[in-house]
Amino acid sequence: MGESVLTVGSATTVEPGFVHVDGVLHCDAIPAPVIAEAAGTPTYVYSAGLIRQQYRRLDAAFARVPHRIHYSVKANSNLAVLRLLQAEGAGVDIVSGGELYRAHEAGFTGGDVVFSGVGKRARELHEALAAGVLFVNVESEGELLLLDQVARERGVIAPVALRVNPEVAVDNPHEYIRTGEKGHKFGIPFDDVPRVARETRDLPNLKLVGLDMHIGSQISSWEPYDAALARLVALLVRVRADGAQDIRYLDVGGGLAVTYDEEAPADVSRFAAGVIEATRGLDVTLVLEPGRFLVAESGILLTEVLFRKRSGGKEYVITDAGMNDLLRPSHYEAFHRIDAVKPTGERVVADVVGPVCESGDFLALDRDTDDAPPGALLAVRTTGAYGFSMASNYNSRPRPAEVLVDGDRFAIVTERERYEDLVRQERASLDWRVA
Amino acid sequence: MGESVLTVGSATTVEPGFVHVDGVLHCDAIPAPVIAEAAGTPTYVYSAGLIRQQYRRLDAAFARVPHRIHYSVKANSNLAVLRLLQAEGAGVDIVSGGELYRAHEAGFTGGDVVFSGVGKRARELHEALAAGVLFVNVESEGELLLLDQVARERGVIAPVALRVNPEVAVDNPHEYIRTGEKGHKFGIPFDDVPRVARETRDLPNLKLVGLDMHIGSQISSWEPYDAALARLVALLVRVRADGAQDIRYLDVGGGLAVTYDEEAPADVSRFAAGVIEATRGLDVTLVLEPGRFLVAESGILLTEVLFRKRSGGKEYVITDAGMNDLLRPSHYEAFHRIDAVKPTGERVVADVVGPVCESGDFLALDRDTDDAPPGALLAVRTTGAYGFSMASNYNSRPRPAEVLVDGDRFAIVTERERYEDLVRQERASLDWRVA
Ligand SMILES: Cc1ncc(COP(=O)(O)O)c(C=O)c1O
Ligand SMILES: Cc1ncc(COP(=O)(O)O)c(C=O)c1O
Repeated sequence: MGESVLTVGSATTVEPGFVHVDGVLHCDAIPAPVIAEAAGTPTYVYSAGLIRQQYRRLDAAFARVPHRIHYSVKANSNLAVLRLLQAEGAGVDIVSGGELYRAHEAGFTGGDVVFSGVGKRARELHEALAAGVLFVNVESEGELLLLDQVARERGVIAPVALRVNPEVAVDNPHEYIRTGEKGHKFGIPFDDVPRVARETRDLPNLKLVGLDMHIGSQISSWEPYDAALARLVALLVRVRADGAQDIRYLDVGGGLAVTYDEEAPADVSRFAAGVIEATRGLDVTLVLEPGRFLVAESGILLTEVLFRKRSGGKEYVITDAGMNDLLRPSHYEAFHRIDAVKPTGERVVADVVGPVCESGDFLALDRDTDDAPPGALLAVRTTGAYGFSMASNYNSRPRPAEVLVDGDRFAIVTERERYEDLVRQERASLDWRVA
Repeated sequence: MGESVLTVGSATTVEPGFVHVDGVLHCDAIPAPVIAEAAGTPTYVYSAGLIRQQYRRLDAAFARVPHRIHYSVKANSNLAVLRLLQAEGAGVDIVSGGELYRAHEAGFTGGDVVFSGVGKRARELHEALAAGVLFVNVESEGELLLLDQVARERGVIAPVALRVNPEVAVDNPHEYIRTGEKGHKFGIPFDDVPRVARETRDLPNLKLVGLDMHIGSQISSWEPYDAALARLVALLVRVRADGAQDIRYLDVGGGLAVTYDEEAPADVSRFAAGVIEATRGLDVTLVLEPGRFLVAESGILLTEVLFRKRSGGKEYVITDAGMNDLLRPSHYEAFHRIDAVKPTGERVVADVVGPVCESGDFLALDRDTDDAPPGALLAVRTTGAYGFSMASNYNSRPRPAEVLVDGDRFAIVTERERYEDLVRQERASLDWRVA
């Protein structure tokens, strides 16, 4: 890199965040219209300072105990964001060979990596062992056997944590983001873990170094989490008593909530206090896998109003960002605040919709929002997590640009795709074969 | 292209389609395992013959009247698929500059193109007029004014069809695919059309050449469609009586249903008979915009079973295809049949799930399916439409390959992405700017 996002601090002491100054939305010290002018719209904009702030808050809350924060790459896999977290001292939680590739590109080494996921392929396990990952979170007995075989082929001992399904019900807004209940695909059934732990220790090329759970996302009430953690701790004690002496890591997952609307954000001190209390005296290094918490609030999606229209008694604000750019409203019925970059002072109740030819292409429904005219800029808030990382080319729409702001400066970190990029993988000349 | 998909017919007279021959699923004459071996998994596989068959069925049903079939590119934008339909004589219905780019790459000329969509940008309208599109389906007064301005800047007269919202309720499976009801973002409100038609004729750089509707997708019961069409026809008569003498096109949309499970497919003869009857004597060229009907049943998603597992009393079949490859099950609760490429003869009731770290990452829930072991190949059926075109890189997963089969030969038409492709748009060196 020419100049790193990591080594150069911000020259000024701008308070990071998104605020209106003189009637214009700023990201840190940069007016949003300046970014729109430089990068076009739609564009994701991230505040480096907000990401650092969240990382440091979480890190500080666990300062009293051995812990490692492994950022869940899937939330926002942008290389500049990864580099920034690497500079803060984070590790990463990855779920694919592609995420491992990204982690490497961003400067993480194998020891910074834990590898999760229900469907790892042999090739990906090879790549992970070649990189020397800290451990692999194994989610099934089939995977355990495959990992042993891959480790044998490579002549190494693979460090394993077992992902436990604690089988507690989690109370969060969408069924798609609950992952630790009975009858979910994730993890090893609670009652099977002691047996699978013995199996792990019996397999010659595996070493059982940890237990792991991740019970879901957007968690802010701690009772189910505490219950799951208590079960994980009980399992740790039992598995150790059974002879598993190499267990050093307790991976307590991610899932900390952020504020989209008026929900309570995760109370980090309460969370940390609960985890520290529950794991007191266990002689483990805690591993955390937060994604959303570190990056969601740091991001906005900047979009321009293309048209206004009234139809069937409804007002529509039609923007140049659609479901291909931000899938969450349509896919999870997710609520995202929408702020006018230059509020008009007038309000309207409207559907804010994108240009994609689907009724499901909306950013907000029946929303009391700024009465923004065509040409106005809007900021879709809290889109730093699961925004760009879920973007597609649906309707042959090039994916948006990404911009990182750091105090009083900004950089385009991802170029907007061009039309040529849409067909990059397609062959102009066909090489016909017969069976 | 080296050898065209268009000019070279299939050497044999293989009946196109997906059938088991000697216990192995074939696409036309090609065994699915041969394709998996050549292209890896997950891979989309399309039968050229099935696409041609659907096109010809629809074309034949309208043979008695002047008509044009404009394939809705968003359903499957693959260049080889587009070339194949171009060779059949199709035009295209596009919704973005990216789709116009693809249409050009595939050999369509401007006159083959109609341009739909609620959120067209000035740049896209410029591109469309430069290409000389047949007409622009205008969806709002704001767009009308913008198009007039763009046409003036270019010194041309822009051909316009007004997209009418017929405001009828459509009965189809998911609210996201109904688009012609009151309170949807699409089209111009029915009662406003006569006024907007006059406005169009008064704008110096526009010419009103058509009326248009598209009321939704996966339509197989014709009452609401007929009702909407009757309203469109009444409007045409009224607008002509009002002095609009240049109207030559009646665009009756797409939306014809296919069979995913046991639903009735669209009865093409009934559809054609209804449209022909309703438009008798009108002296218009009918324009059809089918997407799904032409390509859905021509495609499968070929995927490998990675693991089997049992948890919480449930069976899981874990595949190497996930929601990033095929979003429909998760996003629309869409049903797709899943066939084993080599059926074992044993059945199981299972969730068929992908490797993506979301509970919403499934291909089928509680499905009575083949008891396929790890390593087995599965075919997710009827995925030729809204499959690859909605794929993303979520979880940093490279997008799948695409293969076209034509009788006794096949070709990889889209290369699987590699890790390097995931970061192609990201800048390694940051060019910091100040405001
Ligand atoms: C295994 C695992 N860890 C961590 C996370 C991150 O969750 P969150 O972004 O809610 O912190 C996820 C999210 O899907 C996950 O699957
Ligand atoms: C304007 C327009 N025309 C045609 C289509 C094609 O629909 P289908 O694939 O159901 O035929 C769509 C689908 O969204 C559309 O929006």
